[in-house]
This record gives sequence, C-alpha cells and structure tokens, in this order.
Amino acid sequence: MKDFIIIGHKAVTTPFSLNDLPGAAGRMDILCRCVNAALFLSHDLRRDVRVFLVLKGEPQSKIVCFDGSKVRYLSPDERSAASLIKKALEKEAKEFWTDSTPGVSVRKGDLDILLALLNKKITYLREDGEDVRGRKFDQPLFVLGDHMGLTDEEEELIERYGNEKVSVGPISLHADHCIVLLHNEIDRKEYKT
Amino acid sequence: MKDFIIIGHKAVTTPFSLNDLPGAAGRMDILCRCVNAALFLSHDLRRDVRVFLVLKGEPQSKIVCFDGSKVRYLSPDERSAASLIKKALEKEAKEFWTDSTPGVSVRKGDLDILLALLNKKITYLREDGEDVRGRKFDQPLFVLGDHMGLTDEEEELIERYGNEKVSVGPISLHADHCIVLLHNEIDRKEYKT
Repeated sequence: MKDFIIIGHKAVTTPFSLNDLPGAAGRMDILCRCVNAALFLSHDLRRDVRVFLVLKGEPQSKIVCFDGSKVRYLSPDERSAASLIKKALEKEAKEFWTDSTPGVSVRKGDLDILLALLNKKITYLREDGEDVRGRKFDQPLFVLGDHMGLTDEEEELIERYGNEKVSVGPISLHADHCIVLLHNEIDRKEYKT
Repeated sequence: MKDFIIIGHKAVTTPFSLNDLPGAAGRMDILCRCVNAALFLSHDLRRDVRVFLVLKGEPQSKIVCFDGSKVRYLSPDERSAASLIKKALEKEAKEFWTDSTPGVSVRKGDLDILLALLNKKITYLREDGEDVRGRKFDQPLFVLGDHMGLTDEEEELIERYGNEKVSVGPISLHADHCIVLLHNEIDRKEYKT
C-alpha cells in the first residue's frame, strides 16, 4: 500500500460550493488535483494507493480518506473529487472513520492523529531533500504540503517519526505534480522486466 | 520555446458551461489539466512554454493557444483554464490568430494547419516509444492525445514531419501526467549545476 498525505491548511471542513474550489472552499482545488494524481492511471485506478487529505479549515480539522482499492464514482476532473469530499463533509465526523461513499471515509482529527494511526516511516517532500531517482520505496508514506508548504509545527511532528526527505527535481512544483513524479519513480521499479 | 499540442477529439468549439467540463463540454477537463501541467510551477508560470489545444468537436475544429510568456488571469484550477478557453470560443474564429484574453488566442483550423504553422520536428508520446530519460530536447514540440489517443489519420500526419516517439514510463498515463514527466526530464538538464 502506498499512502499519500496532503495537508490543506485553509481547506474548509463544512460542505462547500463546487463552483468556487480555490476561493470559498479554501484551495480545495489543490487537494482535488492531488487525489487525481495519486489515484488515476489512463483508463484505470491505482488500487494500491490511499490518499489522506488533512483539512485544517474552520470549524475543526478533519481527515478525508480515498482508498483506491474501494473507491467508486470518482472521475478525473476536480469537480468529481470535490463532490466526494463534500459528501464526506456532510457526514457527522467522529473520533473514528465513517464511510461516506464507497472508498471514501471521514473522521475528526489532525496530522498528529493520522501519523499515529498509520504508524509508518515518513517520506517528506522538500526541495532540499535527496533526489528521488534511484531510491526504493517499500510501502511508502509520503507527506506533502499545499501552496503554503508545511508549518514548523508540522515539520517537528514529522521529525518524531523515522523520516527521510526527498526532492523530485531542481525546481519547486505543485503537490500534484510531485505525486506524478513519485509514482513514476516507483512504477519504473515495479514494472521493470 | 517548448510547445505542447493536445488533441481534444470531442472538445466542443462553442461556449460551454463551466459546471460540466467532462460531459457537455466534451472532456474539456482533460485539456484544462494539460494547460495546468504545462504552464504551472509552484508560485510561478513557465514563461517559455506554449500550449496548443486542438478542439475537434462540433461545429468546426478550432485551435486555442496559451502562451506562457504573456498569459494572465490563469489560476491552476480546471475551471480557470476552462473559463479562458470559453472566452476564446466566444470570439469569432478566423483563418489567423485572434487574441481573446492576454496570452490566449484562437483560430480556425485542425492539426494539419497547426503542424504546418509550427514547422518543427515532433516528439510524439507513445507507450512503445523510447524512454524519455536521458534524452535531450531542443525547442521541443510534443504532441499528446486525449483519452482517445490519436487517430490513424493523425498519426499519418505526424509521420510526415521528422518525428520521434518517446515514452515516459512503463504504464499508460493521462496526458497531463505525461506533461509533468516531460518537464521534469527537461528541468533536470536545464537546471543542472
């Protein structure tokens, strides 16, 4: 299983309009593109991937999970992922996971709880990290920030887990583009003949 | 200048609703994601890139160009690119380029006319192409298909230009993900210290 965590610092935690993902929904468009990049192949889905979106907007932090092995009703467009996130936010979030639609679930919580639940070594995307090329990843957990990167507090939290910092290239890219590059590196090893 | 051509076989050529890009607009979402992948860096734009969208839906083929050196009012979300495409389609398309918004222009025409205008060697993305890694690209022109790939007719047209086929990895990916991988390969050479 390959896990991706994307932190949406402004992403709202109540149902939102699908017509203004960048504005009123707090850059929800970034998270939707990350869902696409993590889960979609041409005419197929990556069944061995889970995406965890940490929504940190008002009124309280929530986590939404897309599980590639079970997800349904997901199309590649941003609005489709947004619609499933919205449905998850319509559910009452509790201290445990609640399914909203097939393969999508939601719970209360922030990055600290999610890292404790997953309990895995973390690969953290940073521009000053080691080059991703040639590295091997076994059951990886990647953590990526949104347009605001990660806060000092979040970095400190990550430091507490065994972690490594990797970089996907020489210039700073959007989180979804980084996910595409991470997958490609892993694909090249997994499909090597 | 790096040029990307993406062919939208079903993409409509009259103004469309921004609320149904995959359906009524003929998979316009694919083209919008390609605009994002080709032009966006984190907090910046790729100024040395042009994206040509060949819209082949009814009533007549049109080409919309995004020029990274001039484009304005473009945000990373699909709806933003779609809104600029829609504005371009509101203009009367002629046999020459007409500006619609800064850095976005439109004209009548199909792939044959566009290739003649650009008059460059073509790099064509195909799963059975040579691996992109390690290759050098000088002022490249990349051609990518949408969810339907390219037709035999389009492939024949491309064969007439000096062309090479490249592959970005071992499995079939969406066009926008391919663009991210192409850029990364070029970035790694351009920014090499």
